[in-house]
Amino acid sequence: MSDTKSELTPFFAPRSVAIVGASTTFAKWGAIIFHNILLGGFTGGIYPVNRNQPDIFGLPAYKNLSDIPGPVDLVMIIVPTEKVIEVLNEAGDKGTKAIILITAGYSETGDNGRRLEEETIRVARQRGMRVLGPNCMGIVSMPANLTAWMPSYIPGPGRVSIVSQSGNMGYSIAKSIVKRGLGVARVVSSGNEADLTSVDFINYFRDDPDTDMILSYIEGVEDGSGLLASLRRVSRKKPVIVIKAGSTGAGARASASHTGAMVGSDAVFSAALQSSGVIRAHDIEEMTDCAAALSSQPIPRGNRVGVITLGGGWGVMAADALARQGLDVIPLKSETIDRLNAILPPYWSRSNPVDLVAGLKDGDFKKPLRTLLESDYIDSLMLLGIGYGEMRGRYILDSPYSGNYDMQQIGRLFIRADETTAEAIIGLMDVYKKPIIPVVDQAVMEGESRFKEILREKDILLFASPLRGAVALSALVRYGQYVNRTATS
Amino acid sequence: MSDTKSELTPFFAPRSVAIVGASTTFAKWGAIIFHNILLGGFTGGIYPVNRNQPDIFGLPAYKNLSDIPGPVDLVMIIVPTEKVIEVLNEAGDKGTKAIILITAGYSETGDNGRRLEEETIRVARQRGMRVLGPNCMGIVSMPANLTAWMPSYIPGPGRVSIVSQSGNMGYSIAKSIVKRGLGVARVVSSGNEADLTSVDFINYFRDDPDTDMILSYIEGVEDGSGLLASLRRVSRKKPVIVIKAGSTGAGARASASHTGAMVGSDAVFSAALQSSGVIRAHDIEEMTDCAAALSSQPIPRGNRVGVITLGGGWGVMAADALARQGLDVIPLKSETIDRLNAILPPYWSRSNPVDLVAGLKDGDFKKPLRTLLESDYIDSLMLLGIGYGEMRGRYILDSPYSGNYDMQQIGRLFIRADETTAEAIIGLMDVYKKPIIPVVDQAVMEGESRFKEILREKDILLFASPLRGAVALSALVRYGQYVNRTATS
Repeated sequence: MSDTKSELTPFFAPRSVAIVGASTTFAKWGAIIFHNILLGGFTGGIYPVNRNQPDIFGLPAYKNLSDIPGPVDLVMIIVPTEKVIEVLNEAGDKGTKAIILITAGYSETGDNGRRLEEETIRVARQRGMRVLGPNCMGIVSMPANLTAWMPSYIPGPGRVSIVSQSGNMGYSIAKSIVKRGLGVARVVSSGNEADLTSVDFINYFRDDPDTDMILSYIEGVEDGSGLLASLRRVSRKKPVIVIKAGSTGAGARASASHTGAMVGSDAVFSAALQSSGVIRAHDIEEMTDCAAALSSQPIPRGNRVGVITLGGGWGVMAADALARQGLDVIPLKSETIDRLNAILPPYWSRSNPVDLVAGLKDGDFKKPLRTLLESDYIDSLMLLGIGYGEMRGRYILDSPYSGNYDMQQIGRLFIRADETTAEAIIGLMDVYKKPIIPVVDQAVMEGESRFKEILREKDILLFASPLRGAVALSALVRYGQYVNRTATS
Repeated sequence: MSDTKSELTPFFAPRSVAIVGASTTFAKWGAIIFHNILLGGFTGGIYPVNRNQPDIFGLPAYKNLSDIPGPVDLVMIIVPTEKVIEVLNEAGDKGTKAIILITAGYSETGDNGRRLEEETIRVARQRGMRVLGPNCMGIVSMPANLTAWMPSYIPGPGRVSIVSQSGNMGYSIAKSIVKRGLGVARVVSSGNEADLTSVDFINYFRDDPDTDMILSYIEGVEDGSGLLASLRRVSRKKPVIVIKAGSTGAGARASASHTGAMVGSDAVFSAALQSSGVIRAHDIEEMTDCAAALSSQPIPRGNRVGVITLGGGWGVMAADALARQGLDVIPLKSETIDRLNAILPPYWSRSNPVDLVAGLKDGDFKKPLRTLLESDYIDSLMLLGIGYGEMRGRYILDSPYSGNYDMQQIGRLFIRADETTAEAIIGLMDVYKKPIIPVVDQAVMEGESRFKEILREKDILLFASPLRGAVALSALVRYGQYVNRTATS
């Protein structure tokens, strides 16, 4: 295990990278990947290798790896299959230990390809080299500013690492994570996994000081029990969120023709995943919401949720969504109701969800929140109907009538209300160390507002619907249960 | 039934509306709603009624309804409960037949409120008036430019009508629908439904020439079998998408304290909904995606789906998502494989999903689509990995290296590829009259691009993930099955 770890370091933090098959012809991956490396700002040595051109994007090109002065830690290969073994031997002569084999046309194309793949890996192993790929999209390592991959996209930096058996899914996940307000540490497209596998990278990320959370798209692995053992071990230290694809008959057939992965019984695998502490997501949105909760919220002690809403319908939607996720929308104890009676108007809902639509006696939004957070039988809070203030305020201030009556004053009050709400959430999370899940609508989610900005400065992220908030909170709860169980066992 | 229909007309197309309790104090609903009516551009008579002010937002105010010259088709009441019956009697004297009772403090507050509500409705009925509410947010009728409701939001006009037992949910649904590229005809917040109910409005929308589709948020109704009978009848003519909330124990408790609605057995109601042709959605996102499919796609003949993807992982995700929705990702017949062999490179996936990542022999993206669409055993198509061209093109054209090599040419080719894809989808839908579900990622979904614009001009909407596309396609399939079944029975 520790061997593999040191073997992976040159993939993520190479002093220099050579790109064999680098090109200036933008219809070719050799140009697209090389260009991405340049745009990413990699500060180590960058050596294009191309037999026919003296320079590539202004950098001197080399005819062979052996012509490069000094060591080459990482070699990317983007040449046709029939030339790959020759390049591997050159890399071996050069002392390189890490190979990214972008080239396709191996086991994914049938038996001949499979034989060629086996032969290729044999050569690499003989020379003491580890191989990522073949048939992969490459690698991203933001701490090294290394963006050696196919997508036309440089992710924002952060602390989430991704390993994906589909390059496109890895790319889509990275993009979604960044859009959500998180950032990327590493992305690995593992391709055919002829040598290095998802399991190797998940293990590596466990001890990677730049990685706080691991996301993985998995179609199948040869060593299912090895994967599960790794996941159990890694999950104790960092959250792992997995999309296990090919989990229906149709998906499994599609997967077989994609990566040739063996899927096995999904029900069995699914149960095993659950007991391994892994958070399973069914699509990228769900994965991203779970990642947002795990990165921005404390782990709750249990599954009992208090709900506070500024509109009854949203509360009903939240109660349904939370219950469907197995969370307990716990009935309020009489002591809590008594305390709320003192701050809410006579006919408030007297139940969980607490509907504030009737208003607050003294207008202090913090009081009902604090009352629930102080209750030891409530582990987390969901808030709904918040974050509309700026929109409502601007609607009034932008009105053609806004010069009249109290409209300026009320418009500004609405905007200020959002800031108060955001500050209340931050202050209360700090005191009570319990999750507070802020649910807003899509417009607030996608737009810019002071509300969002204030929360974002404290790394508190929003959720776009009661359902998505409930799914994310449920991931937090289940991950907490796993960590507590394994800590005491 | 037809009586109720004519009784509802003054709510949606009044010649004049009086707002009793209109105000200039923006902390009051009487100001917010009145201001919304002005902003919406209602062209009929607008009569503010306020005992203490001579004018409201520049319009002359009346002390009483009886002071208004000429008839008043619709009266909105936004005064405290103790004054409501007096206003109802004035409205009766004025000959008004339609009342929107915004005022809260009725059955939702307990037994006293319930008695007051019953008394209030009795007075209205004695005077031959129908009442929307109480405890509601009001009404929107875009064909009349009437936006007589609480939210700080004027919806874009269109052909979707909404009736909601939660005002906030009605507002959230309207906003989501408009954001998705659809538009609103009517929105009704039905509040406590002391007189007019969701069923009345669903029935009205059936024969409303301005309504093509009906969305409803329902917590519960007194006459469940009446609701189901209406839904069966209405669904035959127009799609109805329902969020039935309060369907878990926690949700039902929340609902009881919100609208006091009786929920009944969700399992029974759910099965009944299914057989009534209604499309059931679990949240607003799902409702909006189903509405997008139903408004922009033809009804498929069956549940057999062909999938074409520009990346293997996306195809596996799609196959899983479609299968989970009960759709058939049908294996390709050998005749189809033979035809695809002629246009795809030697090692294409040879299965459904068809993975085009290896490229096309002559680059004509239309050919594989046409091959599947021409197959009589394939009822609809899902497309994945499309719509990235503009982003990729701009990435290249915006690069600091873009003046070099073939980058200008390739950048423009990428952008042009998107246009070709969009035109292919439009052309093929026109010829084959089968649904083509275009799945893109969130960035394409939320951004602006020629791809999106070209499709939008033909009312073809995008889907933000394989899962959301699959849910929407499944709604199309099930609705088609219901319509076919009831047409022949």
